[in-house]
Amino acid sequence: MIRGSVGTVKTEQVTFKESLTLESGEILPELTIAYEAYGTLDRDRSNAILICHALSGDSHAAGYHAGDEKPGWWDIVIGPGKALDTDQYFIICSNVLGGCKGTTGPTSINPKTNKPYGLSFPVITIGDMVNAQRRLLEHFNIQRLFAVIGGSMGGMQALTWSALFPDLVSRVVVIASTAYSTPQQIAFNEVARSAIRSDPDWNHGNYYENLQPNRGLSLARMIAHITYLSDESMHQKFGRGLQGKDELGYDFTTDFQVESYLHYQGDKFTHRFDANSYLYITKAIDYHDLSVNGSLSEAFRSVKAKFLIVSISSDWLYPPYLSQEIVTALSSANVDVEYCEIRSNFGHDAFLLEEGQMNYILGRFLSSLTIADVMKVQAPTLTGDVTIKEAAELMITHSVNHLPVIDSEGALTGIVTSWDISRSVAREFTSLDEIMTRDVFFASPEEPVDSAVKRMDLNHISALPVVDEKRQVIGLITAERLSRLIGRCR
Amino acid sequence: MIRGSVGTVKTEQVTFKESLTLESGEILPELTIAYEAYGTLDRDRSNAILICHALSGDSHAAGYHAGDEKPGWWDIVIGPGKALDTDQYFIICSNVLGGCKGTTGPTSINPKTNKPYGLSFPVITIGDMVNAQRRLLEHFNIQRLFAVIGGSMGGMQALTWSALFPDLVSRVVVIASTAYSTPQQIAFNEVARSAIRSDPDWNHGNYYENLQPNRGLSLARMIAHITYLSDESMHQKFGRGLQGKDELGYDFTTDFQVESYLHYQGDKFTHRFDANSYLYITKAIDYHDLSVNGSLSEAFRSVKAKFLIVSISSDWLYPPYLSQEIVTALSSANVDVEYCEIRSNFGHDAFLLEEGQMNYILGRFLSSLTIADVMKVQAPTLTGDVTIKEAAELMITHSVNHLPVIDSEGALTGIVTSWDISRSVAREFTSLDEIMTRDVFFASPEEPVDSAVKRMDLNHISALPVVDEKRQVIGLITAERLSRLIGRCR
Repeated sequence: MIRGSVGTVKTEQVTFKESLTLESGEILPELTIAYEAYGTLDRDRSNAILICHALSGDSHAAGYHAGDEKPGWWDIVIGPGKALDTDQYFIICSNVLGGCKGTTGPTSINPKTNKPYGLSFPVITIGDMVNAQRRLLEHFNIQRLFAVIGGSMGGMQALTWSALFPDLVSRVVVIASTAYSTPQQIAFNEVARSAIRSDPDWNHGNYYENLQPNRGLSLARMIAHITYLSDESMHQKFGRGLQGKDELGYDFTTDFQVESYLHYQGDKFTHRFDANSYLYITKAIDYHDLSVNGSLSEAFRSVKAKFLIVSISSDWLYPPYLSQEIVTALSSANVDVEYCEIRSNFGHDAFLLEEGQMNYILGRFLSSLTIADVMKVQAPTLTGDVTIKEAAELMITHSVNHLPVIDSEGALTGIVTSWDISRSVAREFTSLDEIMTRDVFFASPEEPVDSAVKRMDLNHISALPVVDEKRQVIGLITAERLSRLIGRCR
Repeated sequence: MIRGSVGTVKTEQVTFKESLTLESGEILPELTIAYEAYGTLDRDRSNAILICHALSGDSHAAGYHAGDEKPGWWDIVIGPGKALDTDQYFIICSNVLGGCKGTTGPTSINPKTNKPYGLSFPVITIGDMVNAQRRLLEHFNIQRLFAVIGGSMGGMQALTWSALFPDLVSRVVVIASTAYSTPQQIAFNEVARSAIRSDPDWNHGNYYENLQPNRGLSLARMIAHITYLSDESMHQKFGRGLQGKDELGYDFTTDFQVESYLHYQGDKFTHRFDANSYLYITKAIDYHDLSVNGSLSEAFRSVKAKFLIVSISSDWLYPPYLSQEIVTALSSANVDVEYCEIRSNFGHDAFLLEEGQMNYILGRFLSSLTIADVMKVQAPTLTGDVTIKEAAELMITHSVNHLPVIDSEGALTGIVTSWDISRSVAREFTSLDEIMTRDVFFASPEEPVDSAVKRMDLNHISALPVVDEKRQVIGLITAERLSRLIGRCR
């Protein structure tokens, strides 16, 4: 399948007038969330994937804003035919609480003062970000996420989703992340925050009517940027190459390419990010620690989702051992978890760059489904004693082509299709008995989707009732539904 | 042997009125060097070890300044009975050129303006630091260093010594260092420099009459400090421990111990270091690259010293691969080199902390000597035809107890000692023939010192003539000399 783009997209905003109570106990009087969404939400709203962004990300995960040359930050995996296939899934990405790209944060107007919050904005947590995202899902009337996926701080949100709302998440993908912030990560964040606070233009957070603390924010970004690259990738990218000169300058202008690059990155960042947001979001990262009474396994006790944990070999900010600790904790809590270490020299940023590996790993995980993952749960059924006309009416009401037939115990006895109804009309059959198929194929909920697809293909049938051990009908799976979710090409 | 302290020490200063031409071509009109020295310089000035300090170090390497509670920065290995044994060696450590602890640097008075240099100080290199140290050795009339030793930036100086002055160095020890600064190291340095330059109090380097740029300098130190610790050591030292509180503060005061620690380190540093010096020294580090036309082996072509290269397993700022590259280049240039990786969780700082391993590794390397390393080269000899009286006179003139006897070809034929002279007096012998020992033990220059020591002990003799393949006497080794250099305890 050719990998395509979601095309031109727009960031939307939705405002919730109900207050949001934060983990600190503080109350946020109202909440605006900026988001983007790609693909189409299923009628039963079961194909939604929430993408959580990292520290400096935003809701613009894929496609192009009008006039832009660069696509959203995770365009490599989001789009038609990509792992996060917008032909199959409904992809949502929202700017985090505390951010500065449209979601309520320190740059927002405090309704109590009609001025930007600045430092009067309450300190937030990763859990608060997740609670804000939940509002957005309620807005879409999504009861359960097909998956929640994130890298770096996005991975912290994904983990927190699974722990806070175990019934709302089917799959969790955590990339280059951790279940708790380490002292080294906190140290880098605190130096970055100190750089911002040391800038006189920061003015205790009250700078919105004056100069931004660009020197401090730029420094913060330069520090962070080093941690996103690996030693190897810096050797490859810069080496000891000089910038715009043939020999050392013996002065304090820029000598090396790597210096020039860092300054460029730092400067560019000040045009798109808010210094106070940087303080709030890094603080939320520092506070991140899912362990309960020192036990990470305990944190995952109620978790129901399946997990994919991905680490990056050259990531020294979120080294693989932190991912392995998550895997160990999940396994010991009897959670279904897959682990994968991406071999890459790109360092932490590899999850934004390793197009091939990311598509392969995400695609494989999302399509390794069981029937329970994809079946239609509230499938209408018939009892054998109804008339053909009653059966036809039920089909039309529910817009379905297949009606499992059950006995008085609810056990599967046959199936009737719209084609059977047509046949009865042609042949003038009058009783359901005469048209229903009794030797009916069915699927079990634990069965991998692939094997059910094979059975349907082999027998030229387009739907399977899903039954439990007592042959009770608990759902229905149709070829049409499967082809949308899984794709024919896999 | 009990490891002792060098006791109370004082930093000395020496000023050289001759100008120093720098690698940039700039000329420094005069040069003051601050240094400390421990132990006693041999009569033949052959036991001097130069210690080179790291970025933020100074000349106070060991012992205590009057009133101080903490000893010098490398007291763990310097002192009586330690690897850098002040009973055997004469240890010198000088503050680097560009520093702020007594050696000429940006805080010094520019003789042309009678004001502190500030940014009018010329940009310096590691090579310039080495050239300045050479002046100090000339001051002591030291022709050849027994060893030059340094960790981190000190290692860069040690390597540069061996390349610039191959005839002046017998042994080189390079710890947790590199033959060239990597882009990641340059990146961290440039962020640190940017932090200083971003501080309005820096004022383009003209702050000596006003406030120091303490916020910038503190930030620079905080960044650097993270790179000196390892992820593991930070887990062990801080974990996610809170500072002076039982729960998260939900504000922007310090939450975690690691934050408090970094701020303490940053603040403390501003009381002992100069911001401009930090700019100059980090620039010298960035410029460090010993390779010649891209070849590191080429850089070591004229090198004559023996090398010990030491890396630290958890050092991610100067990772072991950088040390291994030095070893490879030295080996391919046919230089005698030993390599050792210290297993330690302490990160880069391990060379300042791993007392046991550092003493063992340094001690073993320094004492793994050959006879050529320790023999007395200009040992007087006799020919067989001199009188007993002439032999005695020669002993007295040269203050020696042993006189090898040679034939007309210069080949060893015997030895005469002051004890033999005494014996001739007692027994009234009149000819040298009657008292000289003909069945004489000797040593070869390539022989390890240990084996010669054994032979002397076994045969109860206190000196060995050293002879070449043609049995020509090329020197003498005495028990007295050995015991001073090697120590009896090894």
